[in-house]
Amino acid sequence: MPSLEKVAIIGSGNWGSAIAKIVGTNTARHTDLFEPTVRQWVFEEQIDGKNLTDIINEKHENIKYLKGVALPHNVIAVPDVVKACEGASLVVFVVPHQFIHGICEKMKGHLAPNARAISLIKGLEITADGTRLFSEEISRILDIPCAALSGANIANEVAMEKFCESTIGCPDMEDGMIFKKLFDTPYFRINVIQDHVGVQLCGALKNVVAVGAGFSDGLGHGSNTKAAIIRLGLMEMRKFGQTFFGDAVQTETFFESCGAADLITTCNGGRNRKVAEAFVLTGKPIEQLETELLNGQKLQGTLTAQEVNQFLQARNMQHEFPLFNTVYRIVYEGVSPELITVDI
Amino acid sequence: MPSLEKVAIIGSGNWGSAIAKIVGTNTARHTDLFEPTVRQWVFEEQIDGKNLTDIINEKHENIKYLKGVALPHNVIAVPDVVKACEGASLVVFVVPHQFIHGICEKMKGHLAPNARAISLIKGLEITADGTRLFSEEISRILDIPCAALSGANIANEVAMEKFCESTIGCPDMEDGMIFKKLFDTPYFRINVIQDHVGVQLCGALKNVVAVGAGFSDGLGHGSNTKAAIIRLGLMEMRKFGQTFFGDAVQTETFFESCGAADLITTCNGGRNRKVAEAFVLTGKPIEQLETELLNGQKLQGTLTAQEVNQFLQARNMQHEFPLFNTVYRIVYEGVSPELITVDI
Repeated sequence: MPSLEKVAIIGSGNWGSAIAKIVGTNTARHTDLFEPTVRQWVFEEQIDGKNLTDIINEKHENIKYLKGVALPHNVIAVPDVVKACEGASLVVFVVPHQFIHGICEKMKGHLAPNARAISLIKGLEITADGTRLFSEEISRILDIPCAALSGANIANEVAMEKFCESTIGCPDMEDGMIFKKLFDTPYFRINVIQDHVGVQLCGALKNVVAVGAGFSDGLGHGSNTKAAIIRLGLMEMRKFGQTFFGDAVQTETFFESCGAADLITTCNGGRNRKVAEAFVLTGKPIEQLETELLNGQKLQGTLTAQEVNQFLQARNMQHEFPLFNTVYRIVYEGVSPELITVDI
Repeated sequence: MPSLEKVAIIGSGNWGSAIAKIVGTNTARHTDLFEPTVRQWVFEEQIDGKNLTDIINEKHENIKYLKGVALPHNVIAVPDVVKACEGASLVVFVVPHQFIHGICEKMKGHLAPNARAISLIKGLEITADGTRLFSEEISRILDIPCAALSGANIANEVAMEKFCESTIGCPDMEDGMIFKKLFDTPYFRINVIQDHVGVQLCGALKNVVAVGAGFSDGLGHGSNTKAAIIRLGLMEMRKFGQTFFGDAVQTETFFESCGAADLITTCNGGRNRKVAEAFVLTGKPIEQLETELLNGQKLQGTLTAQEVNQFLQARNMQHEFPLFNTVYRIVYEGVSPELITVDI
């Protein structure tokens, strides 16, 4: 009999907490497969003079990042990342991408010999030089395989057990099925595919399309125009994947939750759509809207549009992706938002 | 040099009028390919004591079905369907489906020898016995090939030149390209594919999915739940096509405007979504809501759900299409709308 999988969650923000609820429930449910105890690395903070890890372990609630949602008692908050991951065979990464490198360096040598990881970090790095998947960075530093999870879901709705789906991209389907057992619930339904590249690519490029959809909303175009932009965006996402990653990116991926579904929800709600709509309606620059609407946080979609543009320009291919290119030109070159229905 | 194509439009409702504007503009633009004059069969009605055809030919406006939109002067309204189609080589069908049979019978023997048709009639007939495409019915009666056009577009927005797309399904790509010239404009962008079956199938089945999306809205679920329903619906549409029509229905079709885009817009706006939402919120039966919200008109999505159910039941396959089946059971068997996120 194979030994039980020992699970560690690295990260404890809004999404990490919602996922901890699911993972803790599933390790307790599938005791033939998992050790019930899940250790979660929590970046230590003081809340009213108390450690956040102590509060989580006493109250079974992350009062800072997922207030009001009970966490399973078998999820143990651990402030030291080495102790959190010691001997873990399944590692769930759900931290802001800029922390991956430092955290993985600390974790080196502390995992189980057969350890596998899964990244819940959306997107990927795109520069003029090329692209880098966060799953690859994890994989490279820790020398373990790393899958990816992404889909049409947001932390608060998942925590409230609103029905939604998610996609796991895992080249090894056997591992994929183990991850499915770790995440699948009746309200959070998991499909496993092999294409971990497409899963992460969709998570980044959808935000560029959502900026285009927001322009359309700001211009007062109707639902059909927006559907056309969403569709053309889906086609460019797919073309981008299949042009620069070849067979690694599968057409089927775009039918999954990480593809069409996440794109639809991002273009209907979400901050990228909203700020882009305000960009057209107010005429204010994006930086000002970020200050006014996002508390100074950077908008993901415009940032990715810029990264994608640098990548494409370096290959002289920006004109082969007219929607991505037009979003970029509207935001960064001051061309009229009206072009969103002309130049795409 | 081949002779010019002679175009007839059969039908003059809201959609027929919007299309007449486009077709008339394009025949006048591509004089190398088309005779500029387009004859449009208009079902004769009296408006304030005057013939509708006379009004259209004097004012160049269909004041009953597309008020306020100028029609090209080269579109001639003709009250007699035989005179309208006499010698036509390209015939555009845009009439309610129940009139196809009678109209085609009258048209027999009056078209050019090389005539080809295109059907803009959405959907298809589905009974326990099987399915029948409207393009096939036209083709069979008139003994000419018939393509299909469908997409994320509604008449009034097209007439107002709001940007949108549409898909032509035409097995003969050469003919498809001629139809493209007839319909494509900068604001009404046409893609041609060969799969005319998928084009028509999507136009019918999307309405069933929209009923499911409306239930989700009525239950107060968020955008992610609805995106999951839309995605699962798209997969069932595709499975239905590929199960019952085999290779005739292509995966690529679902990426086209007639597929994903039309589904998205139908699930975001539209009467099927709206009535289904009201069904959950008010608890009233569909018939009553049809009276109250649709002036007694039948809702397409629930009707199609019933037809699809009869078709699937006759093959004992309803459980292989859980979303279609659940929509049916909620409307016709009184099961709880909550099942829309449970049984699918």
